[in-house]
Amino acid sequence: MSVIQTIKIIERVVLGKMTELPSTAMALYETIKDLRIVSPHGHCDPTWWADDNRFPDPAALLIQPDHYVFRMLYSQGIQLSDLGIGPDGQSRDPRDVFRLFAKHWHLFLGTPSRYWLEHTFHNTLGVDEPLCLENADIIYNDIAQKLAGPDFRPRALFDKFGISLLATTDPATSQLNDHLKVANSQWNGRIIPTFRPDDLLNPTRSAHSQAISTLAERTNLDVSSYQSFLDAIRIQRAVFRDAGATATDHDVPDLATCWLDPASISALHQQAFAGTITPNDAKKYYGHMLIEMAQMSAEDGLVMQIHAGSRRNTNHELFHAIGPDVGADIPGSTDWVGGMDALLNRVGNDPNLRIILFTLDESTYARELAPMAGHWPCLRIGPPWWFHDSLNGIRRYFDNVVESAGYYNLAGFNDDTRAFLSIPARHDLWRRGVALHLSDQIDRGVLDRSAAENLGQLLAHDLAVDSYRLKL
Amino acid sequence: MSVIQTIKIIERVVLGKMTELPSTAMALYETIKDLRIVSPHGHCDPTWWADDNRFPDPAALLIQPDHYVFRMLYSQGIQLSDLGIGPDGQSRDPRDVFRLFAKHWHLFLGTPSRYWLEHTFHNTLGVDEPLCLENADIIYNDIAQKLAGPDFRPRALFDKFGISLLATTDPATSQLNDHLKVANSQWNGRIIPTFRPDDLLNPTRSAHSQAISTLAERTNLDVSSYQSFLDAIRIQRAVFRDAGATATDHDVPDLATCWLDPASISALHQQAFAGTITPNDAKKYYGHMLIEMAQMSAEDGLVMQIHAGSRRNTNHELFHAIGPDVGADIPGSTDWVGGMDALLNRVGNDPNLRIILFTLDESTYARELAPMAGHWPCLRIGPPWWFHDSLNGIRRYFDNVVESAGYYNLAGFNDDTRAFLSIPARHDLWRRGVALHLSDQIDRGVLDRSAAENLGQLLAHDLAVDSYRLKL
Amino acid sequence: MSVIQTIKIIERVVLGKMTELPSTAMALYETIKDLRIVSPHGHCDPTWWADDNRFPDPAALLIQPDHYVFRMLYSQGIQLSDLGIGPDGQSRDPRDVFRLFAKHWHLFLGTPSRYWLEHTFHNTLGVDEPLCLENADIIYNDIAQKLAGPDFRPRALFDKFGISLLATTDPATSQLNDHLKVANSQWNGRIIPTFRPDDLLNPTRSAHSQAISTLAERTNLDVSSYQSFLDAIRIQRAVFRDAGATATDHDVPDLATCWLDPASISALHQQAFAGTITPNDAKKYYGHMLIEMAQMSAEDGLVMQIHAGSRRNTNHELFHAIGPDVGADIPGSTDWVGGMDALLNRVGNDPNLRIILFTLDESTYARELAPMAGHWPCLRIGPPWWFHDSLNGIRRYFDNVVESAGYYNLAGFNDDTRAFLSIPARHDLWRRGVALHLSDQIDRGVLDRSAAENLGQLLAHDLAVDSYRLKL
Repeated sequence: MSVIQTIKIIERVVLGKMTELPSTAMALYETIKDLRIVSPHGHCDPTWWADDNRFPDPAALLIQPDHYVFRMLYSQGIQLSDLGIGPDGQSRDPRDVFRLFAKHWHLFLGTPSRYWLEHTFHNTLGVDEPLCLENADIIYNDIAQKLAGPDFRPRALFDKFGISLLATTDPATSQLNDHLKVANSQWNGRIIPTFRPDDLLNPTRSAHSQAISTLAERTNLDVSSYQSFLDAIRIQRAVFRDAGATATDHDVPDLATCWLDPASISALHQQAFAGTITPNDAKKYYGHMLIEMAQMSAEDGLVMQIHAGSRRNTNHELFHAIGPDVGADIPGSTDWVGGMDALLNRVGNDPNLRIILFTLDESTYARELAPMAGHWPCLRIGPPWWFHDSLNGIRRYFDNVVESAGYYNLAGFNDDTRAFLSIPARHDLWRRGVALHLSDQIDRGVLDRSAAENLGQLLAHDLAVDSYRLKL
Repeated sequence: MSVIQTIKIIERVVLGKMTELPSTAMALYETIKDLRIVSPHGHCDPTWWADDNRFPDPAALLIQPDHYVFRMLYSQGIQLSDLGIGPDGQSRDPRDVFRLFAKHWHLFLGTPSRYWLEHTFHNTLGVDEPLCLENADIIYNDIAQKLAGPDFRPRALFDKFGISLLATTDPATSQLNDHLKVANSQWNGRIIPTFRPDDLLNPTRSAHSQAISTLAERTNLDVSSYQSFLDAIRIQRAVFRDAGATATDHDVPDLATCWLDPASISALHQQAFAGTITPNDAKKYYGHMLIEMAQMSAEDGLVMQIHAGSRRNTNHELFHAIGPDVGADIPGSTDWVGGMDALLNRVGNDPNLRIILFTLDESTYARELAPMAGHWPCLRIGPPWWFHDSLNGIRRYFDNVVESAGYYNLAGFNDDTRAFLSIPARHDLWRRGVALHLSDQIDRGVLDRSAAENLGQLLAHDLAVDSYRLKL
Repeated sequence: MSVIQTIKIIERVVLGKMTELPSTAMALYETIKDLRIVSPHGHCDPTWWADDNRFPDPAALLIQPDHYVFRMLYSQGIQLSDLGIGPDGQSRDPRDVFRLFAKHWHLFLGTPSRYWLEHTFHNTLGVDEPLCLENADIIYNDIAQKLAGPDFRPRALFDKFGISLLATTDPATSQLNDHLKVANSQWNGRIIPTFRPDDLLNPTRSAHSQAISTLAERTNLDVSSYQSFLDAIRIQRAVFRDAGATATDHDVPDLATCWLDPASISALHQQAFAGTITPNDAKKYYGHMLIEMAQMSAEDGLVMQIHAGSRRNTNHELFHAIGPDVGADIPGSTDWVGGMDALLNRVGNDPNLRIILFTLDESTYARELAPMAGHWPCLRIGPPWWFHDSLNGIRRYFDNVVESAGYYNLAGFNDDTRAFLSIPARHDLWRRGVALHLSDQIDRGVLDRSAAENLGQLLAHDLAVDSYRLKL
């Protein structure tokens, strides 16, 4: 290495440059940044690829559906109606919304949202100028124009992004028509469903009763009987598997699995069916149903995802005025050892079972999740989720889980997003986080360069394929 | 950059030098280190500036009132009486106390107390030699001599430190005579009070009954009636606002806000007034009163500070022998989402309300506080408090809160000290922590240099002004 | 420093090299890496040195007894019986076991087990080739041959490792025959016992009843009487002290000390003795007994170790099939302030008492343990334990405890291992972690080089001697 090169490295370290990484990290990042994307868990709408309509205006695409974005604006005193959100915001001009967003762009400094959006502006939408109030209209027009063209339709973008496979998350009673439409189309993109039975299994959810009725309709079974209810669920799981699903997903606000004897669970099912179950019994019922789901997963091989610890809709006024997903879901602490005890001791040693655990309580990484995943054959630790899907969140994740769980008990990355355009940015941020982590491991003598490169490929791509039992 | 410069940077990194920072951090630190100091929360005694008497001897100034200092000495077997603390220590020669402290100076290696005191010795008191047992008497004499002179009186030091404004913390029943005396003096220093109503609102506090009586006396209201009690509090809030207060402060050992119906809260108030309230009801009563305070803040604009999670006086023997604040207050875990739920759902969307939350449970930074502050318009996250007001504490704070809360939902810095001489040192340590954080953000590509410089100014000065609604 | 040296430093930072550290850290590491080893807490079998028999085959030495190793293999679907563990694995060829382990060696990337084993292979067993399936048999043979020779017997290795003193952990009822045999031998190695009374004090342990009987037998006292029971324990403590013990050890799954009045504790003792005590009362009983132990420690000077927060045997199927210690002990959260309250307020200010606290809940480091150790004269914080005895675990430990507890309220290092051959590796990893921590402190201006070197010596060796009151 010449003196000039030496100085260049120093200069870069000293001066810093946006989106550059320290040199070992950069070299590792180069080996993984262009790998294809596998997206085994997220909340994109399958209709996008079924119909391949063009996306709506920039505000409706980038701001209004993104709770990361509007929650931050709301936290600084901007009304959701001024962002065109909720009943009072319906008539808002999307151009005004975009301008209001641009005016407050500085609020996002230091957040992953800023990185995701800059990446999307630059890499996907070809916007090179930094956003500000003055150029908001120009950038709005530029994006709107692009969205009107054929290169920015859902299928074209999917191909451009280099996505091998994308999983949506679908109600367990879905007929998966959008997925069938994609499958029967000429287009080769792979969109698979994920089986999400929360509305069926958790009686405290507002859609519970409707979901039960729909299940009965779909399966022609008398789901008031507990055994028939289980049969009906098995039928729908098979429908999903036939459409390519490899996983289920469970939103568990308060993790507490428990196994009830047949008489008790049947009785609780009657009450759940009748809508008379108490909140406390509803929790027990859902705790039992999670074990039933684990048992079905051990049978049919669907990978079970447990997302635990989000306290939903904590802002009652906004919930009543607008609905769920308005940025007021706040994490709480989670007891993974106690909460999973009944499930694991019933089915946790089954070699066919795989469960991926996602936490919002990072204090459990080193204390509970890593020791658990480093023991139970069924468990893998999901990537940093939601508020923790960020550069520091990724750093904390690796620092806390690897030493007890190793790398092979992790589940790779998934973007978990409903913002389709952010998918490349999210995978890119993960890959940067992976590179930074691995270079730290090299610096401290834990890994050599060759092992780090192998692990880079594993973490950026292969582990997700393996963890979700995907056939590419 | 020349090879020689290159080598110098390397040498510095390799060899290390006390109080030097890595170069990007140092460059950022240079841009903020001389900014004026705003101190919007702390526990200095307003009498100091009202009377402008000289400070007492070095031991009484630097050691005996500083629980950070004597708790560490006590933890290593030194009796508090040998430090001149408590009834048994009254006759101790301050020179002996200072010598005992100097002998154990090594115990403070790695602690912020060491940094604060070294900064105070060097920058304020002009002591250049490292303290040790051998020079303890010389340094004592040197400091004592300086304290006797006019340059080290409270007002002169306040001016020398470059303090724009300093807030004290005052009982809600105070007549604020010291503040009025300062205001009516020729001196231009700004000392403002902070409204602290804990003794009035929390029936478990030993001064509760006395505080209630004093309130009645001050306001000539029959505070046995709940409505008059609220009116009396409003009167005192107005007294504080008139004296320049912009904030209230609440010490909440166990956070659990709750809203009671009029009959229940009136009944509990009767019991609190009569001194017959049970501990459990006292907790409910205080939980309700915090919401009343939030509602008054939404009306009168006083910023509400909640300091939660300190378990007070855990060493009963010392408490009975000496009293509170002897270094035995130990943090516990805090449930911010549950504890703030009733308050936020009653008044949390009010655009005029501002609440600054201070935690001693860092596991809540990323899990609860940052998501909450990134949603609720009233919330800001206070800087690292007490045990966490340290270089690592500052690192953990930024690493854990910025990605979900951004920078603009933070409250800037406040020193929260009763040790006046440590104020410049504490702000300096914060500014170093800010510089180290921002340079880490640059290194990882999160911020560019220009954004980092703007944020440096914001974090070191402007955010505190804005968060506390100060008029400078 | 020449340009060439400069470039070399850069190259090393850029390229990374296994087991090299950044240069300041490396320089500090060099000053402590060859210090003698003090091992004041661990689970080695004293019989090894009493009999000085050669160790068994490589699998029985390195794999089968190491729950860190086989838990990871089990987590990836390998049956314990295939590793020769449990009743079903008794006939397994150790060569097959070693081969299976070698095949899955990649699973340990990033874990301390990998570091410990590589260090043992390289430094102790002279195996230079990286392990893989292809060379597994060769390496097995190589190790087996070495174990057969005189240089690899327990006493020879003890001397070779540079161990000044090693403490075992022994049932409180032990007659310490192995220790007496060592003491009466020609060999000079110092092996001391540690008094572990859990089986006597915690009625929920399966060996409780047997332990009580054995105690009666050893002491000829009627231990059904509570006072005689305490006397019997005092007798056994004296037996241990006479054999060189300086400490006791307590495994506390769920920390909750409490002090009961004489009538209550006598009544509970009757029930514990009769085997009729309820689980809830058993917890109270054990909570009281811990305080009795602390009081005895204040009397006889034995250092009390509390290891809290491990939920034992969480995999019931494996527990019933194989037994305890199969890798299914998972940490839970611990309330140190509440859990220690009764004990500390009874005896915590006694100048003769020393208690070392070990946690598996790292969220308590900065929140509870460091503030507690920075106040109570009896407390020291034990080194990172079990899952946290790792490079990141050490980093988190120092980052979280030093600023409130200082360095002198820490307990130095202990390896806590039952894997004798890993002792040098574990102390080496700790020393690397110490060097990395201290160099970070230098880089950020917290310590100068000279202070860092003194603290290196303290943390790597002297603090353990002092904390455990060892006479070397």
